[in-house]
Amino acid sequence: MKSCGIIVEYNPFHNGHQYHAKMAREMSGADVIIAVMSGNFLQRGEPAIIDKWTRAKEALSHGVDLVIELPFAYAVQSADYFAAGGIKLLQTLHCDAVCFGTDHQTEMDYELFGKFVNMNKTEIDQTYQQIKNNGMSYPQQMTEVFRKLYPKSGLDFSSPNHILGLSYAKENATYENPMTLYPLKREQAGYHDTNIYQDFASATAIRKAVFSEKLDQIKQVLPEQVAIDLVESPNVSWEDYWPLLKYKLISSSIKELQTIYQMKEGIEYRLQEAAKTSDSFQTFMEQAKTKRYTWTRLQRLATYVLNNVKQQEIENSWNHSHLQVLGFTEQGQRFLREEKKNLVLPLITKVSKSLNSQLALDIRSNQLYQLGDPNILEQSFGRFPIRIS
Amino acid sequence: MKSCGIIVEYNPFHNGHQYHAKMAREMSGADVIIAVMSGNFLQRGEPAIIDKWTRAKEALSHGVDLVIELPFAYAVQSADYFAAGGIKLLQTLHCDAVCFGTDHQTEMDYELFGKFVNMNKTEIDQTYQQIKNNGMSYPQQMTEVFRKLYPKSGLDFSSPNHILGLSYAKENATYENPMTLYPLKREQAGYHDTNIYQDFASATAIRKAVFSEKLDQIKQVLPEQVAIDLVESPNVSWEDYWPLLKYKLISSSIKELQTIYQMKEGIEYRLQEAAKTSDSFQTFMEQAKTKRYTWTRLQRLATYVLNNVKQQEIENSWNHSHLQVLGFTEQGQRFLREEKKNLVLPLITKVSKSLNSQLALDIRSNQLYQLGDPNILEQSFGRFPIRIS
Repeated sequence: MKSCGIIVEYNPFHNGHQYHAKMAREMSGADVIIAVMSGNFLQRGEPAIIDKWTRAKEALSHGVDLVIELPFAYAVQSADYFAAGGIKLLQTLHCDAVCFGTDHQTEMDYELFGKFVNMNKTEIDQTYQQIKNNGMSYPQQMTEVFRKLYPKSGLDFSSPNHILGLSYAKENATYENPMTLYPLKREQAGYHDTNIYQDFASATAIRKAVFSEKLDQIKQVLPEQVAIDLVESPNVSWEDYWPLLKYKLISSSIKELQTIYQMKEGIEYRLQEAAKTSDSFQTFMEQAKTKRYTWTRLQRLATYVLNNVKQQEIENSWNHSHLQVLGFTEQGQRFLREEKKNLVLPLITKVSKSLNSQLALDIRSNQLYQLGDPNILEQSFGRFPIRIS
Repeated sequence: MKSCGIIVEYNPFHNGHQYHAKMAREMSGADVIIAVMSGNFLQRGEPAIIDKWTRAKEALSHGVDLVIELPFAYAVQSADYFAAGGIKLLQTLHCDAVCFGTDHQTEMDYELFGKFVNMNKTEIDQTYQQIKNNGMSYPQQMTEVFRKLYPKSGLDFSSPNHILGLSYAKENATYENPMTLYPLKREQAGYHDTNIYQDFASATAIRKAVFSEKLDQIKQVLPEQVAIDLVESPNVSWEDYWPLLKYKLISSSIKELQTIYQMKEGIEYRLQEAAKTSDSFQTFMEQAKTKRYTWTRLQRLATYVLNNVKQQEIENSWNHSHLQVLGFTEQGQRFLREEKKNLVLPLITKVSKSLNSQLALDIRSNQLYQLGDPNILEQSFGRFPIRIS
């Protein structure tokens, strides 16, 4: 069976995502579309507006055949690690292709870029090491590296989707059998775009409408079931976890905060002070933000604090990867049955207590996600893959 | 000036407390009544229903002349440590007497008991060491010690107020100049009594009425201002802190929980499991309770967890005691002015940032207390002693 992977978050699932799945199938000619999807905490350091099981169900009803969870240790990360996780899981499933959105304005050969970066890795890494403490954000730093080394490339890393595309390409090229890349140009509704167009809107605009209770405005950009889910299922934002984050930052000693993953350069003092004087996540972020820390980087750090994540746990998770199945269509199930015998990573279709230590970080983050709303169902134990026929 | 001390919690202040202050003055003939009062977390491991400043103000309007805060490290403790802290602060202030409530049924010479225990300390301690792991609660164990050693004494440690009285007596007798003891017999409304009598009710009964919004039932047992405060000031219970306690227990590793003061014998596993399956503090306590752990001991442990208290911090606080003044009447201020030059402990009338490390535990517990209700005012910085004239 020919397969095409997509690496997604669905926060929440909207018409643009349905289009993405449809185009992935068309462009690649695949029989099965495999989504590697972030769980309940996302790449930009946020809780997902709707829980992973609901999002998986929505995807399976709208063009996706198989949903695999991207573990926390890969999902809540900068583009490079996020891409590394997504590509790794798709490679494990022997996927033939990857289709990803891009908002890059000109045509670009991602596969060539990936090969080029891997061939010139040493040079690029060295230049990055030289400039990495210049106070710029990571995207700015990478743009600077390419401006210095390859001034003619004209590469710009400033758009989030473009950065992800470049990271997929780079990572994919490190494998013996790279997948075929299908970049899909976004026509409307950029990543940070908060406007709503005829049938498409960015996830950012949709979340904004949901939290300001203007769901009517966005009904046309969502599949019907998603609009229903956004009303009937609990939906959460960072503000729901703010009391817990504030408590954690105030109750912990500086030494304890220093044990958190990525807590360095003294930012722990700044976070603790900002927590004491803030009464919402929004004001906390505004107070804590510095030129050195982008909003997203700070939000990821806040997610690590909330989930009490340690370096060792991230490494453990990287070294003990697995494929957790959130759901499938009949086609997706057929594919899994075929691939099962060739898998080099353990396939998890049921989280049992025996997986407690192996999945510790994922199980804990799911339990903590539940604290955002008393109606969020148990996320791990006793849950089985969703079947959509 | 002749002075009489009382060691109190005022959770909340009621007619019985006003009677206690009045009788302390009458029995001792004192010019000034000094209350050593727990701060925002109390002896039985609970948050105070009303914050310490409001409770101090109420006391100063109803017969108390000076309110000194009993630091967290002494306040949230079993009877012996609680008494040690209270007596220590009164001794520092060169108090002449102590008046305390007792519900012991027969007349008893507390001073004699204090001297006796100190003279036979070795024998009592040895017997306690022999039986301490028998699975009984501490009060049961002490009753057993006295039954074994001095069968004729007929001492019973099972009533909370009686235990406190015995602890005061024991502690007081260790000083070179012990204070005169004035036990005050309670006529009605025992410690755990949940009924409301004509003009008196236990604090337990009053809290119950407040949380079930039946304030009308208890108006006659409270000074008018307290009834107003209970409506107008934020009032909190353990349930307000339950989401934070649950978060702390779920997000921490077992190793981290083991760093909490008094966390031993594997109770950390039990607390974490109970937290996962409970959706209120009440159910959590019911699930966590064992024969070995009394409700109060478990509640104190929960308070240590909530406040992230470490053994080292408790010892630091014990070794660096201070007198924090919460308020005074003119008489109380006059007394303080006289005593100031003779004090061996630092007198704190204003918490400044320079006291951050010395008062770390108290400042933090006050900040965490504020998380129980957004309307609780700042408890440390910028607060001055209350003056009632």
